[in-house]
Amino acid sequence: MNVTQEKSLAGLTGSAAKDSRIRRSKLASPLITLAHGGGGKAMRELIDDVFIDAFSNPTLNTLEDQARIPLAELARLGDRLAMTTDSYVIDPIFFPGGDIGKLAVCGTVNDLAVGGATPLYLTCAVIIEEGMQVETLRRIVASMAETARAAGVSIVTGDTKIVGRGSCDKIFINTAGVGVIRQNHQLGANRARPGDRILVNGYLGDHGAAVLNARGDMHLSSPIQSDCAALHGLISVLLAAAPGTRFIRDATRGGIASVLNEIAEASACGIEIAEAATPLRQEVKGFCEILGLDPLYLANEGKLVAVVPEAEAAAALQALRAHPLGREAADIGAVLADGHAGRVHMQTVFGGKRIVDMLIGEQLPRIC
Amino acid sequence: MNVTQEKSLAGLTGSAAKDSRIRRSKLASPLITLAHGGGGKAMRELIDDVFIDAFSNPTLNTLEDQARIPLAELARLGDRLAMTTDSYVIDPIFFPGGDIGKLAVCGTVNDLAVGGATPLYLTCAVIIEEGMQVETLRRIVASMAETARAAGVSIVTGDTKIVGRGSCDKIFINTAGVGVIRQNHQLGANRARPGDRILVNGYLGDHGAAVLNARGDMHLSSPIQSDCAALHGLISVLLAAAPGTRFIRDATRGGIASVLNEIAEASACGIEIAEAATPLRQEVKGFCEILGLDPLYLANEGKLVAVVPEAEAAAALQALRAHPLGREAADIGAVLADGHAGRVHMQTVFGGKRIVDMLIGEQLPRIC
Repeated sequence: MNVTQEKSLAGLTGSAAKDSRIRRSKLASPLITLAHGGGGKAMRELIDDVFIDAFSNPTLNTLEDQARIPLAELARLGDRLAMTTDSYVIDPIFFPGGDIGKLAVCGTVNDLAVGGATPLYLTCAVIIEEGMQVETLRRIVASMAETARAAGVSIVTGDTKIVGRGSCDKIFINTAGVGVIRQNHQLGANRARPGDRILVNGYLGDHGAAVLNARGDMHLSSPIQSDCAALHGLISVLLAAAPGTRFIRDATRGGIASVLNEIAEASACGIEIAEAATPLRQEVKGFCEILGLDPLYLANEGKLVAVVPEAEAAAALQALRAHPLGREAADIGAVLADGHAGRVHMQTVFGGKRIVDMLIGEQLPRIC
Repeated sequence: MNVTQEKSLAGLTGSAAKDSRIRRSKLASPLITLAHGGGGKAMRELIDDVFIDAFSNPTLNTLEDQARIPLAELARLGDRLAMTTDSYVIDPIFFPGGDIGKLAVCGTVNDLAVGGATPLYLTCAVIIEEGMQVETLRRIVASMAETARAAGVSIVTGDTKIVGRGSCDKIFINTAGVGVIRQNHQLGANRARPGDRILVNGYLGDHGAAVLNARGDMHLSSPIQSDCAALHGLISVLLAAAPGTRFIRDATRGGIASVLNEIAEASACGIEIAEAATPLRQEVKGFCEILGLDPLYLANEGKLVAVVPEAEAAAALQALRAHPLGREAADIGAVLADGHAGRVHMQTVFGGKRIVDMLIGEQLPRIC
């Protein structure tokens, strides 16, 4: 048995526990230690001090390992429970326009909302590397709490694990979410039909470019901001304006190219988009040109792709543009009536056509 | 921009994507690469090849990022939705009696069941370190699938993230779970009353000792097995035999000492247990003596503490003992009528009494 192991066992014996009580008052340490994951007093104090206050809501269960929600409450909102999960491993954990905490709430809210669900309750499980500043954790948790409050969702139960230095990179956060799908909504990638229009709610690639830029050495004079946002309000507006909407998906890892390919594959239809109609910020365009990136593959965290019947497309676009998160919404293309089933094409600004394939190799690692 | 970053961007450009398509056929690589987390084809292939087949069930949604469950189905089983989450970071990922996959299913099933819920649906989010053998991942996923099937729960949605070498240790798994609580069950740590009996369902500390032994250099001739098990069947039997049961908790991190302290604190009652009545395997006892550990603080993954009204204790014990996971169940003590509110004591085998405090310092890191 080596020294590290002996040290890690110290807390188990009565006398060692007493020693550590003298050394450690309530979060006296400004750093997260392995003790904060031990299942004992230190963990309880960390949870009380950092998480409980920030997340405070009536459903948050501080005594048990589970939250409890009356089914009658859920049944008032719709007929199906939606359930989703995502782990967030983004690097860096703070970036222009957001942080891992904001992302962990928005990402899971969006995964619920794009299916037509009203997002309601989230879980929050953190894996923290020993040595993180407690204040850093507090900032992240405050950001989660603020984002959840603004989105009208409650974080109702959680889990805290601490791993030794070098066993994870700073912090990973998992949020799982439940919501309820309204009775009249039936959305699916396989529901796209020839003639349907393809809409997006604004500039593409901001998140990917912002995070990549935050990592690199390019020092842009005006850093690109991530578009990280909770989209359920925008989606409500869209579904009200275009109740026949076939499919909505947030275009995260793999960008809109991956979403379009999924739609084409699931519906066995072709899709054609127009480069000229695709909203791209000048900075993102320039950034992509310098680095040889294709912005269609860049991750977004506040952008959706919607497939809307042609007859409802104008109303949908108008509704999107009237919402703060959809001002630059655009109709970028259509589902094709014939040929190229399962393929996505783009009409380039030079008048040519190119295939927009699904991403094959690696993308930007740890982009979300 | 350094070489690593350039390399990581390669997949985004058309020509690089074509190159990588030539190099990589369907899971041609025996190792997990960053491409498997990119949101493109490689990720889809990994998910299809490793996860979808293994988890196959009618609710598993392979097209969307969310699972959908009719609320009417849930309402037939009870009146409240229970929701829980846990991340599993155990080291080593394979140990006598289980592995991280089995643990990730059992732990979350148990967190649902101890609240009186019927466990129904799990999410599965993995964070994998680049370079893991695909076959290792497959073994873990197969173990999750087998454990879920045996427990009667469905894994219905998931997420896969890959991080670079050294950014996590092999694999971390998060499972969130939902279940439904039957109408007549009201369990809570604050419901313990003087006179109530404290029951456990068998030998304590097996998991902690097994994992610690698997890490160390002691080479016991007969390795201790983790008690990792799904307890919802046993809990059903217990609740049927003792419908007045006040509280059930699985004694994981922090061991039964932490659970007993939580009960004492929440109910503002004292608790006294008898060392002589507390079931401990001879090997675990010996192991703890050699290492100077207190087995009351060792983690369990298949042991619960139940607080049962005195009048129902005999029936509860009989029911537990009739179940394969409760053969060595024992009545280890009682909630006290007076004095020592909020404190836990143990009558030692030598006739003395000692305080069983909540764990203060660090326990065994990465025990679950």
